Amino acid sequence: MRRAMSKQDYTSMWEGLGIDVEAHEGLLGVLGQGYQDVFLSQENRPAGMAYLDFVISEIHGLRIQELMDAKEQGRSVIGTFCLYVPEEIILATDGVCVGLCAGADIGAQAAEQVLPRNTCALIKSFVGFKLAKLCPYVEACDLVIGETTCDGKKKAYEIFNDFKETFVIETPHMKSPQSMALWQSEIRRLAEKIEGTTGKTITPEKLRAAVRTVNAKRKALHRLNALRQATPSPISGRDALLINQAQFYDDPIRFTEKINALCDELDERVAGRVGVAPADAPRVLVSGCPMAAPNWKVPFLIEKNGAVIVGEESCVGERGTRNLVDESGSTRDDMLERIANRYLDIDCACFTPNTEREDHIVEMARHYRADGVIHYAIQFCGPYTIEFHKVADALKREGIPLLGLETDYGTEDAQQLETRVQAFLEVLRQ
Amino acid sequence: MRRAMSKQDYTSMWEGLGIDVEAHEGLLGVLGQGYQDVFLSQENRPAGMAYLDFVISEIHGLRIQELMDAKEQGRSVIGTFCLYVPEEIILATDGVCVGLCAGADIGAQAAEQVLPRNTCALIKSFVGFKLAKLCPYVEACDLVIGETTCDGKKKAYEIFNDFKETFVIETPHMKSPQSMALWQSEIRRLAEKIEGTTGKTITPEKLRAAVRTVNAKRKALHRLNALRQATPSPISGRDALLINQAQFYDDPIRFTEKINALCDELDERVAGRVGVAPADAPRVLVSGCPMAAPNWKVPFLIEKNGAVIVGEESCVGERGTRNLVDESGSTRDDMLERIANRYLDIDCACFTPNTEREDHIVEMARHYRADGVIHYAIQFCGPYTIEFHKVADALKREGIPLLGLETDYGTEDAQQLETRVQAFLEVLRQ
Repeated sequence: MRRAMSKQDYTSMWEGLGIDVEAHEGLLGVLGQGYQDVFLSQENRPAGMAYLDFVISEIHGLRIQELMDAKEQGRSVIGTFCLYVPEEIILATDGVCVGLCAGADIGAQAAEQVLPRNTCALIKSFVGFKLAKLCPYVEACDLVIGETTCDGKKKAYEIFNDFKETFVIETPHMKSPQSMALWQSEIRRLAEKIEGTTGKTITPEKLRAAVRTVNAKRKALHRLNALRQATPSPISGRDALLINQAQFYDDPIRFTEKINALCDELDERVAGRVGVAPADAPRVLVSGCPMAAPNWKVPFLIEKNGAVIVGEESCVGERGTRNLVDESGSTRDDMLERIANRYLDIDCACFTPNTEREDHIVEMARHYRADGVIHYAIQFCGPYTIEFHKVADALKREGIPLLGLETDYGTEDAQQLETRVQAFLEVLRQ
Repeated sequence: MRRAMSKQDYTSMWEGLGIDVEAHEGLLGVLGQGYQDVFLSQENRPAGMAYLDFVISEIHGLRIQELMDAKEQGRSVIGTFCLYVPEEIILATDGVCVGLCAGADIGAQAAEQVLPRNTCALIKSFVGFKLAKLCPYVEACDLVIGETTCDGKKKAYEIFNDFKETFVIETPHMKSPQSMALWQSEIRRLAEKIEGTTGKTITPEKLRAAVRTVNAKRKALHRLNALRQATPSPISGRDALLINQAQFYDDPIRFTEKINALCDELDERVAGRVGVAPADAPRVLVSGCPMAAPNWKVPFLIEKNGAVIVGEESCVGERGTRNLVDESGSTRDDMLERIANRYLDIDCACFTPNTEREDHIVEMARHYRADGVIHYAIQFCGPYTIEFHKVADALKREGIPLLGLETDYGTEDAQQLETRVQAFLEVLRQ
């Protein structure tokens, strides 16, 4: 079963990368079926989503071929797991930046050979994909960059490094001037490491162009998000999430063009009051842990029960894209400093205190006129599961309804989650 | 049931501190019974352990009275949760430093109102003790100091701060020069905060005296540890753990005197080949998460099955005490820098990489002539449960037998743990 996936035969490319081709075929089958159920079954989708269908159908095919072609031309492929690794620095060496966070529980059995069972699904997934030889992205990488955001990833990178070279930068956990000094020096150290790996020098010109490229991508996503303020929403939350997921894999310039074209279409939809759900559908803001592709479980449960998701307060969403890099720097050091500043502004739950995130959730709920918030946490994710208490306090103060879900990548709890989502949507409809 | 606990009536003092006296009475009953079973039932204990019996019997009584008397005299009581908070700085303001990490699951139900169920038992315990009003130490504190060592504590302090003022310092997670610069500035910031709270100035003279006091305490513990190289061991691992636990509560000068007196007695025991277990008892090194009082479950299981614990690679053990502060500084800044250096040397699993810890475990196993290592991890403790994989690799390379245990503060798994311990000791006896 490979519906929705590429018809091309990439077997020899996968074999060359050391992929377990048979197991990988199974993965693509599951992925294709999931995509069919979650995305292609939607009615009245924007025509521009055809591009995303294509991106997903070729996510382990043509896109990997593009990476191999880039490597053939002397460009490097750098893998990252987290928002705190600046794509700008990689692009400034003509490198290709790919997000490696994984959203499927394939490989979990292999991961549990080296990680505790009580590790979050995202971490088990990226380790599992590597150990089970199922991720052509990680195999295509010349270097992988880790960070010290959470205990789970920080310590898992030590083990991952035994299988794939992983360069770790220290993300601080507070936002003092001294933490910023540490972070700026880490960003400089990263730039030097990437120069060493790629054999390219980061010039001010290259860096400026990279900053503009990534800012343009973010602006296209801002435009997409703004359109979701409309009632009815012109695009489903599932499709918006998919776009946010695809940005970690796709070529940034092409992606930006396609998203802007999609937004042109959505402009027309909004003007004509064309939506994907009835105007009275409950509007939900999803907040919490990142949903890496193909983790579509919770958004699917929410929308198949008649709600529409109008925003993602997530690393794979507005938390990850809302801030731009200040484009005013002129020297390399100036620009690296501005890049560091922008990235330390991200309000990940790894920081303490992190009241900016509470404020941002409230602000998003108001801005997108959400009827309620569904907080999504991956089981065993300490930062987000503990921060939930503060989020709940903040939303209670503002009178915004909240449902907290904690789950993993399995399907065993789907019925239980759905029952809770249905009950919550009932409340929102009242 | 309050066997082994003080006969004095401290009810009015506890009431004055806002303790839930009735529930607290229950806690003391459980503690007294546990102490009877784990400690007082031992045969052939050193006579010097009578002091520790007294310390424990008065741990919520006379010692709290001493804290209240100190406060009466204008001294402050500062609570800490972690090795990374330098006791020296507190002592230099004539303050009293008390360790608040808690080792009992009383209060867990209250803690789960504000924390996820999947939080480590130690964190649930310190939050639970506060919410259930069962810890006179935290109530006696003028200020509590937290740190950013692990995700769980870092985020739990945000919630804890709603109930008790908690000042958090940033512990870095790597050991680069820039991380050290951050850490040194955090230590200076802490010193200023403690000066503010206590109203006292930290002079070089006061700081030098404090450094010597804490170093002397550590040297007494080094002396104790060295005596455990002997066969038969002159003291049980349970008693050695108790001493390591008591150091976080007791007056440091009195404690040092009493431990040195105990060591005089142990010197004689070693000379006379007097031990607490037969010379052929399996010798076990315990390594892993801290065991805060009254967390005695695993050591009790190990020793009641005929082994003797000869070392603790733990925050409540040699990891916490092995390094001394360089006493050579002359100015306040010099000394604070040396203090910072000493504390950043601690090889907590919160650091990446943390190969020093693997090396130290191997070194301790050799030094104390351990037949095997039992790795103790608190369930849901990311840093230690994940680092276990690297520890296992290191011990395998060295041919040192290893048993990994993961547990919480409950008693439900005691039988299962004991069966595994028994099987491991069988292997060591072969």
